[in-house]
Amino acid sequence: MSYFPQLAEGFSELFASIANDRVLVLGHARPDGDCIGSQLALTRLLRAEGVDAVALNADPVPDALSFLIQETPVLNLRQNLDESSLLFVDCADEGRVGPKSSKAIANHNFLGNIDHHISNTKYAHFNLVDSKAAATCEMIAGLAFDFGWDVDPLTAQCLLTGIMTDTGRYSYAATSRRVFELSGRLVDCGARPVTTAQALYENEPLCRLELLQRFLATLQTKCDGQLGVGKVMYQDFLDTGATYEHTEGFVDYTRSIRGVKIGVYLEQRESTVKGSFRAEHADYRVDTLAREFGGGGHACAAAFSSGESLSEIEPKVLAAVERRLGEV
Amino acid sequence: MSYFPQLAEGFSELFASIANDRVLVLGHARPDGDCIGSQLALTRLLRAEGVDAVALNADPVPDALSFLIQETPVLNLRQNLDESSLLFVDCADEGRVGPKSSKAIANHNFLGNIDHHISNTKYAHFNLVDSKAAATCEMIAGLAFDFGWDVDPLTAQCLLTGIMTDTGRYSYAATSRRVFELSGRLVDCGARPVTTAQALYENEPLCRLELLQRFLATLQTKCDGQLGVGKVMYQDFLDTGATYEHTEGFVDYTRSIRGVKIGVYLEQRESTVKGSFRAEHADYRVDTLAREFGGGGHACAAAFSSGESLSEIEPKVLAAVERRLGEV
Repeated sequence: MSYFPQLAEGFSELFASIANDRVLVLGHARPDGDCIGSQLALTRLLRAEGVDAVALNADPVPDALSFLIQETPVLNLRQNLDESSLLFVDCADEGRVGPKSSKAIANHNFLGNIDHHISNTKYAHFNLVDSKAAATCEMIAGLAFDFGWDVDPLTAQCLLTGIMTDTGRYSYAATSRRVFELSGRLVDCGARPVTTAQALYENEPLCRLELLQRFLATLQTKCDGQLGVGKVMYQDFLDTGATYEHTEGFVDYTRSIRGVKIGVYLEQRESTVKGSFRAEHADYRVDTLAREFGGGGHACAAAFSSGESLSEIEPKVLAAVERRLGEV
Repeated sequence: MSYFPQLAEGFSELFASIANDRVLVLGHARPDGDCIGSQLALTRLLRAEGVDAVALNADPVPDALSFLIQETPVLNLRQNLDESSLLFVDCADEGRVGPKSSKAIANHNFLGNIDHHISNTKYAHFNLVDSKAAATCEMIAGLAFDFGWDVDPLTAQCLLTGIMTDTGRYSYAATSRRVFELSGRLVDCGARPVTTAQALYENEPLCRLELLQRFLATLQTKCDGQLGVGKVMYQDFLDTGATYEHTEGFVDYTRSIRGVKIGVYLEQRESTVKGSFRAEHADYRVDTLAREFGGGGHACAAAFSSGESLSEIEPKVLAAVERRLGEV
C-alpha cells in the first residue's frame, strides 16, 4: 500500500533532479519539532540515498530538540551556501525561513517544497503539499516508506518527534489512521516515543515553570466564556530568566478552559508582540484571523508577529476574535 | 496477524463459558480512563456477541469520561446482582473493586480477569494477563480484532480512550508498535482521538487553572535539584472553588523539572494530607517510600494519605526522599 500516492510522481521527479546537486534542506524560523524533525530526517534520508544534503536554519535548534541532531550536518548562515538547490520543509511560503535566510538564499533555485499547511503558496518548482497531513514529518515518513528507503533509528526518532509535536501528542483532529500506522512503523525502525516525550515534556527548566505560573495568573475568559486569553510580558522574561522558546505550549492553556472556542496567547517581546491562536474546530479559521495581523497557519492553530505595541494590538486582536466568534 | 496469540485459547474458553450467563464487567474503585474504557468496551463487545453483559462499578464514572457511556448498561450496587459471573478488567487483584463492591460480589463466580498490571495475582478462573500491554484497553482491542468481532464507533472510542490515558498520550515506555497499530484500527472503526483529548485535556474549569497557578508558585527543587516539590494548601481550595479532583496531574509538574529524579506533591485537605510521588525510573521505588507513610503504588508512581498535619509530615517526607536519593 502507498501512504501518499498523489505525491509519488512529484517526489520521484524531485529526487531525480537533485541526484547530482548540493541540497540545502530549509526549515522555518523559530523552528519547532515538526520543522527540525523534517529537516534532520529528510537530510539523513537523502544522504543515505547518496545526495549531498545538509540542513540549514538561521535559528538554532531548540535545546529540547538537540538530542535529534547527532552527526547530521546542520549549517548556519555563516557558511558558504554555494550554488545549492533548496528544499523547503514545513514552510507555508518562502519567507517563513526568516529574513536572514531569505537574504542568503535569494539567488538560489527554489526546487522543492514539502509541507502540510493549508496556506501553502506553492512557491517552488516541485510542490508536495498535503494539508490533510497532520505533520510534515508524517509526509516524509510516508514518502520514505512508499519509496522503500531505509529509515534508520535516529531518522525514525526525528520523524516521530515531528508527528508527536504537531499532533499535540496524538490529540488533534488530524490524527488519522495513517498517523498511527506510520508511528507504529517508525517504532519498528527504532523510534522510542518515551525518548521524545521525556526530552520535550519532562525536562522543564524551573524558569519555564515560573513563567508558566505568571502566565496562568493572567488567564481570563471573555465573550461569554468563548474566548480565553493569557499573556506574558517582557518583564516576566527578565524576572524569571526564561527565554522566548520557553513559552512553547502556553497557548494551549488558553484553549483548554472549559467552554472556550478560541484561545489567544500574547507575548510581549523586546520590540515585537507575538500572538498565537488555537480554535476548538476548523470552522473558526484562525489562519485567516492571524493573516489580519500579518501571520498565518492552520485553521485550528495559527500565529503572527507584530511591530505594534501590546497595548495597541491587544484590543484589535480581541475585537477580531469576538467578530469571528459572532460569525461562526 | 494476531495481536495477542498467547491469550487466544484462554479468551476463547472464557467466551464459550459465558454464552448463557449474566456477566458483570467489573472495574476498580476510583476508575480512570483505561478502567472505564475497558468496562464499557467489553460490555458492548459481549452484548454484540449475544452475551447478557452489564458494567458495574461502585464509584461513579468521572464527569470527563461520561461521554463514553451513552446507552451502555452500567449498574450500581443498589441493583440486584443475581447469580452473575464476574469479569474483572484492569484490576490487579479482586480487592481493587473497592470494599463496597467486594462485599456485594463475595458469593459470585470469579470467572475472568483481563489486566496488564505486573502485580496481577491471577485471582480468577481465566486469567488473561499481559504486563507488556500498555493498557487493558489495548488487550481488549487486540482480542476483539483477533476474534474478528465487530467494533462499533463508540466501542472504538472507549478503547482508544483507555489506550490514550494509560500511555500518557502515547508518551510512556510501553507505547509499542502494537499500541499504534491498534489505535489506527480503532480510528478506522470510528474512534476520534480529538474527541477524547478535548473531553479529557481541553475541558478545564478555570478554577483548576487558578489552583494550578498557585501550585506552580510553590514549586521548588532541593537536594542539588534532584528533588522537586510543590504543594496545595486547603485555603487554596477555598479561595479558588476548586475541589480535590482538580489536582489530578499536578504531581507530574514536580517530576517534569529538568534534573529532578523524584517529584513530590503534597496536598493539604480538610483533615488529612495527601502525598504523591513520581520517579524518573523504577530504581527509586517510590512505592516503598509511600509505604513508609501508609500508602503504596508502583515503582515510579505512588501515593499516601496521612492524618498528620502538613507541618509535621512535610519534613519527614522530604527527609525520606533525600535518603532514597542517596541510596540509589
